[in-house]
Amino acid sequence: MMLPEDELIGLLARVAGHSSGITVGIGDDAAVLDGGLVVATDMLVEGVHFERGRLDAAAIGARAAAANLSDLAAMGAEPICLLAALGLPEGFGEVEALSAGVASYGVPLAGGDLSRAPVLTVAVTAVGRAERPVLRSGGRPGDLLIVTGELGAQVVSGYTRRVTPRLVEGAALAEVATAMLDLSDGIAEDVPRLAAASGTGAVVYLADLPRAAGATIEHAACGGEDYELLAALPPDADVPGFATVVGCLTDEPGVRLLDASGTHRDLHGWDHFR
Amino acid sequence: MMLPEDELIGLLARVAGHSSGITVGIGDDAAVLDGGLVVATDMLVEGVHFERGRLDAAAIGARAAAANLSDLAAMGAEPICLLAALGLPEGFGEVEALSAGVASYGVPLAGGDLSRAPVLTVAVTAVGRAERPVLRSGGRPGDLLIVTGELGAQVVSGYTRRVTPRLVEGAALAEVATAMLDLSDGIAEDVPRLAAASGTGAVVYLADLPRAAGATIEHAACGGEDYELLAALPPDADVPGFATVVGCLTDEPGVRLLDASGTHRDLHGWDHFR
Repeated sequence: MMLPEDELIGLLARVAGHSSGITVGIGDDAAVLDGGLVVATDMLVEGVHFERGRLDAAAIGARAAAANLSDLAAMGAEPICLLAALGLPEGFGEVEALSAGVASYGVPLAGGDLSRAPVLTVAVTAVGRAERPVLRSGGRPGDLLIVTGELGAQVVSGYTRRVTPRLVEGAALAEVATAMLDLSDGIAEDVPRLAAASGTGAVVYLADLPRAAGATIEHAACGGEDYELLAALPPDADVPGFATVVGCLTDEPGVRLLDASGTHRDLHGWDHFR
Repeated sequence: MMLPEDELIGLLARVAGHSSGITVGIGDDAAVLDGGLVVATDMLVEGVHFERGRLDAAAIGARAAAANLSDLAAMGAEPICLLAALGLPEGFGEVEALSAGVASYGVPLAGGDLSRAPVLTVAVTAVGRAERPVLRSGGRPGDLLIVTGELGAQVVSGYTRRVTPRLVEGAALAEVATAMLDLSDGIAEDVPRLAAASGTGAVVYLADLPRAAGATIEHAACGGEDYELLAALPPDADVPGFATVVGCLTDEPGVRLLDASGTHRDLHGWDHFR
């Protein structure tokens, strides 16, 4: 039987532990090494994260890069380079387009590995640097919860939209944020993660979620792969123009997703193991 | 139609190019970034690189870690940490053993990602540091070719033997070597790579290959995944006790694999795309 993703990640973390030279290990968006080096890795698998009929090779490469660059953004890190390990099914002839997609955000592709695989498998690693890496765990009761951009755009697009990793916004938020992560599985899944890591509860006002054109509240709260940033800011912080306040962290444990009438909605995000 | 691995890697390199901040990119064992940071990535796929019936989860994790640590060793780099992106088939319940295998060389596992996948897929990235990274390209005609350890042990074991990445030997060789790589595809495949990168030819004396117990000359020359180091040393260098001289680099182009009678043998190594 498979465990849910958070339990599996917890298990990985138990094996890995923390070691000298590693400031932050498994369980945050990226690992932080001594000297402010930040490293993230992510695997996209055909049939799980994408279908080849719906995304071309360049778009698949871009998605894999974006997932990792977004993890760096969520730490407030500046990217240095990417590495790509590609598993290629028989007859796949678009390595060049796929690689060009990985490099399409202007972050250089510094290394790679190629293998045969039953389905197209793209594992990208991003290396970056942060002066002041922002973890998930620094949030305090009373902090404002903000998000960048609009939510639900990916699910509305049928998961075909080009992602914009919020690197500039992440670097700006790193100046003030107490906690940050990127919304890969929907706010209904990711707010509980930030709150749990910070040892707080949280309230989200669903009507305040900035919704992409055509997105319902459910799309905005539960849609995966938006890769917008979710951050906790001290209550007296200036909220940047690119951010929307969607709730706050609380003393009271538990996460409440409140609709316009103040009723909790039992919404869930995207878990690749469900 | 698939291209052979070297052509595919060349194609990747063409897309990637070299960029500011990256000293050495695709085509060497690992990427070298400014400041001596060395990064390598490698993907092992069930049915291509291993069978689950023949290797247990811990051994699979160890193999994936070893492939990357060996790439660091081939640059003369000291490891800092590993990251693992794991693709898990339905019903796979050995994440903990797999992760423990990745961490079994004492290099901390700093980050991870988990996904569903049709077959077990293990993409590991290694991050390290080298004061003087040794590339494939620095060899000169007249340099001695040396290898560490014994060759052919993996093929003789049916690819079940625990690999020892030659990190200590790599660091020692980095003091003198003009070029270095790790033997992942057999000396018959890897000597031509080193010679081509260095712009030289090479001669290998097959009878001088240090053979593992039970290994034929063909096993020693063509067996994959030994992960011993192949280095070029200046002719006047002291050859360390752990190394065996197996040939030299030449002015004359082409690679000759000479048997005891001085006849060239047309041997080929392991190409995962053949």
